[in-house]
Amino acid sequence: MQNRTDLALELKEEAEEESKLKGVSMKTRIDASNHIRETRITIKDKEGEQVLGKPMGQYITIETKDLSANDGSYHKEMSEALYLNLKEMIPRNAKVFVAGLGNSDVTADSLGPKVVGNLWITRHLKREGYLKDAIELSAIAPGVMAQTGIETSEVLEALAEKIKPDLLIVVDALAARSSSRLNKTIQISDTGIAPGSGVGNHRNEITEKTVGIPVLAIGVPTVISVPAIISDIVGNETDNGDILEMLDEDFASMHVTPKNIDESIKRISYTISEGINHLLHNHIKAE
Amino acid sequence: MQNRTDLALELKEEAEEESKLKGVSMKTRIDASNHIRETRITIKDKEGEQVLGKPMGQYITIETKDLSANDGSYHKEMSEALYLNLKEMIPRNAKVFVAGLGNSDVTADSLGPKVVGNLWITRHLKREGYLKDAIELSAIAPGVMAQTGIETSEVLEALAEKIKPDLLIVVDALAARSSSRLNKTIQISDTGIAPGSGVGNHRNEITEKTVGIPVLAIGVPTVISVPAIISDIVGNETDNGDILEMLDEDFASMHVTPKNIDESIKRISYTISEGINHLLHNHIKAE
Amino acid sequence: MQNRTDLALELKEEAEEESKLKGVSMKTRIDASNHIRETRITIKDKEGEQVLGKPMGQYITIETKDLSANDGSYHKEMSEALYLNLKEMIPRNAKVFVAGLGNSDVTADSLGPKVVGNLWITRHLKREGYLKDAIELSAIAPGVMAQTGIETSEVLEALAEKIKPDLLIVVDALAARSSSRLNKTIQISDTGIAPGSGVGNHRNEITEKTVGIPVLAIGVPTVISVPAIISDIVGNETDNGDILEMLDEDFASMHVTPKNIDESIKRISYTISEGINHLLHNHIKAE
Amino acid sequence: MQNRTDLALELKEEAEEESKLKGVSMKTRIDASNHIRETRITIKDKEGEQVLGKPMGQYITIETKDLSANDGSYHKEMSEALYLNLKEMIPRNAKVFVAGLGNSDVTADSLGPKVVGNLWITRHLKREGYLKDAIELSAIAPGVMAQTGIETSEVLEALAEKIKPDLLIVVDALAARSSSRLNKTIQISDTGIAPGSGVGNHRNEITEKTVGIPVLAIGVPTVISVPAIISDIVGNETDNGDILEMLDEDFASMHVTPKNIDESIKRISYTISEGINHLLHNHIKAE
Repeated sequence: MQNRTDLALELKEEAEEESKLKGVSMKTRIDASNHIRETRITIKDKEGEQVLGKPMGQYITIETKDLSANDGSYHKEMSEALYLNLKEMIPRNAKVFVAGLGNSDVTADSLGPKVVGNLWITRHLKREGYLKDAIELSAIAPGVMAQTGIETSEVLEALAEKIKPDLLIVVDALAARSSSRLNKTIQISDTGIAPGSGVGNHRNEITEKTVGIPVLAIGVPTVISVPAIISDIVGNETDNGDILEMLDEDFASMHVTPKNIDESIKRISYTISEGINHLLHNHIKAE
Repeated sequence: MQNRTDLALELKEEAEEESKLKGVSMKTRIDASNHIRETRITIKDKEGEQVLGKPMGQYITIETKDLSANDGSYHKEMSEALYLNLKEMIPRNAKVFVAGLGNSDVTADSLGPKVVGNLWITRHLKREGYLKDAIELSAIAPGVMAQTGIETSEVLEALAEKIKPDLLIVVDALAARSSSRLNKTIQISDTGIAPGSGVGNHRNEITEKTVGIPVLAIGVPTVISVPAIISDIVGNETDNGDILEMLDEDFASMHVTPKNIDESIKRISYTISEGINHLLHNHIKAE
Repeated sequence: MQNRTDLALELKEEAEEESKLKGVSMKTRIDASNHIRETRITIKDKEGEQVLGKPMGQYITIETKDLSANDGSYHKEMSEALYLNLKEMIPRNAKVFVAGLGNSDVTADSLGPKVVGNLWITRHLKREGYLKDAIELSAIAPGVMAQTGIETSEVLEALAEKIKPDLLIVVDALAARSSSRLNKTIQISDTGIAPGSGVGNHRNEITEKTVGIPVLAIGVPTVISVPAIISDIVGNETDNGDILEMLDEDFASMHVTPKNIDESIKRISYTISEGINHLLHNHIKAE
Repeated sequence: MQNRTDLALELKEEAEEESKLKGVSMKTRIDASNHIRETRITIKDKEGEQVLGKPMGQYITIETKDLSANDGSYHKEMSEALYLNLKEMIPRNAKVFVAGLGNSDVTADSLGPKVVGNLWITRHLKREGYLKDAIELSAIAPGVMAQTGIETSEVLEALAEKIKPDLLIVVDALAARSSSRLNKTIQISDTGIAPGSGVGNHRNEITEKTVGIPVLAIGVPTVISVPAIISDIVGNETDNGDILEMLDEDFASMHVTPKNIDESIKRISYTISEGINHLLHNHIKAE
């Protein structure tokens, strides 16, 4: 229940109200286009972990200055901002392996597989001697445990051992608290995926500890949980917990999504794959 | 806001609490399989229309006795119950025209198009001399106004004039108040479609008055509106309206859907098309 | 069998070999970008109709100069060339109604519905007072007769009577003879659709005669029929007919499609909808 | 070119004509329902491998007695026949891992991913103590090399090492020579997948040698290659090779598929997943 948002930005907003911000720092900047706001939250120590309920590391949020305007008009700016951050976080010439998490049969959870579907994969071409100057990119959409019977972390660990990339990027659909951020906000973090997060509630963590290589996580909030909506409405009063307990059990497996979720997921997944593809682009063009 | 459910059954439950039930009658029966409960609500006069906010007519609800069990296990019983009701309401040898309302690109609104996609269409075959004993069935999925620029009622009126069926069946996705009924309940009514109902909020009514022939409506609740959830939780207290007003404007275009909406819509749409196809089945088999 | 291509350009190539070209004229030009070749075939009289087996009128083919290069790289140039031709053929301020023919469940036949899905529809907005300077655009994807039981021409005639547009544009998937033109060539004609053409073999014609308003047809070859392939290979020898007769009957319902048909249809349908949308674009931007 | 069919049955028919059948045996039987014909071809030694161009092992073909009748009417009988063969080939209590090969975005190549999507996965449930009497089933749809940059055999080897199943079942779309067998025939073999076979032309073999555990292959022909069609038509005459050389290069990447490929793949994939699910069924029911 506490973790009803996967966005560090929203956790911080909440924590701020309660003024317990030790171990956490935040910087905000507007990009060159004057349309995009980047917020960088750093959780610096154990105390910061306690405050936000997330592991130590960087959490970068990319969104438009005026959220309501972000209906696709700033696709290029978002994509470029993602690219610039990735470029900074990924060593030159790194072998990159991308995992698109989630269930491609459930629209709100299909962000990861859709991103992977639009990547320019180079690993097999480079191994045949082509694209010498491009970075090595491989990818998989491993499905969810109900489809495979295998923990996603097990699949990724096995493949990382086999193909030996330098870095894993996991792309996942997240839960948020605010409807205005749905399908409009990209979060990048260098901490990997914590247990229980994401739309599909991955039970196992996907981090350097479990997979054996550094893990970057790219996420977009695509749903709001019903408890998050209710908390927002009834506020932080004492009987809040009581109301949540009264909630129809069925609501536990429910999501609030915008009506146009199908279209939105298509658009934002394209924004993300373009940001990642940009890492290869110039090299390939040159050749 | 008042109409936050399209199910007459739920309107009645609500009205009952307020004990204003003049002009409305209700009968419940369990079917032969002992798994299915049918509830028949009759709105008898203007007073009944006032109480439930729906036009005069029959509203039949088909659901399993134990709603939580209705996960597809009673597919055949539901389908059979739908068939038996349709058989009673549709004259023998009627020419039937089915319209699958809704947007096939939005999962929660795609029930109608999916049902039409599974029908056994006979009109063109009968006109060539085949299937003499089967009823004439034609169908269309007209799309929504944002896709066509044309009111759905205009499309159906034009086609009804052209192909001269005896009866129109419209199939549509509805909004409900209770999460336990989503994708598990079928409502049949002889009143057609009122303005502003359905997931896609059809602005114009689709009734005998506008289309020129009797209109049966088959609907399944596939979403809950956010205001409906909140009302359920905060109850009927005085400040209810205030809370609703405070709601983020974005929520107006949001739906609460179960995570497995894609799978559920596939299953229930199949249940409905089988119920309709059954009307033709025996005749065709014989031939 | 004779009509194994829907492209006038290919019929002409064939007829030319047999040197019977009375009543037919042809002009070719390269567009400003130097990438696109437009071929305009005019069938001038009854004699021309005999020679090519198609009704009198204009047939404009848009393709890249080097067909093998047309893998999406000239998307913008193709789209612009389509727009310029449409602009010339459609009166300023005309009310335009677009019909996307074909079966959206059969990839090779889904071009029409996909184009309609990407149009900027304005009719409903203009009727509420918005977009005063834009042209009125409405659209429908009527499905195929096996899905509806209704002839496509009946649906379009009924709707044309109801909404009174000035012009109908039908978009359809075609059969071609040459594999190099699949999903790479756009044919525009002012003659509407002849009976028996298209991937789905529309039995009735869709022309000004049947629908009551002028009909522009936009088509893209997406399949090759098996007989067309064989003719190409075994040539025009005397036993050609014998071989065709020997053909497994099943082949009659078969198509030759490229492996990547799903991706190609997505791309070319987007090229076409952009060409049509361009008709509205400047007006809407201005407003 | 020689391997223009992946069906051992068709290779045998061809070889038979040339009367070189050393090292190959064949048995045919009709099942209890009197609708299904099973043909068991055994390639017994190196000589048999030479004759049919396939590795030593069993190749079982399940099809209806009258192929033209197999339009889905014998779904249950096909599914049951598959189940009975699998039961015989798979040790009781084996841990089974299923790989659905192919590209889910290309209809004719999507059989494998679709089958995996309909399996009852038990591995994760058994590991939590449920379904003690059921066999352990896990699965993956690994995508194709153009999507992942990783050889399918590498993915499967890595996962087999990690999750240690007793047996791998690969499900794949095949090429056939005869149109009458498309989407109507199931081939089971205990030899795994040879290099260069399947619709997507898997370059590496997937066999016990590469994956480390026994590999069962289940395949359904979904396409015919253009050269196969031509050979059928022009026969075995001397100039056959010349004609094939003259073939438009584009044809190399083309498939002949029935128009209703989308529907057929849906049906036959369901038949296969039911056959596999049946392995678990009784156990789970009992519990």
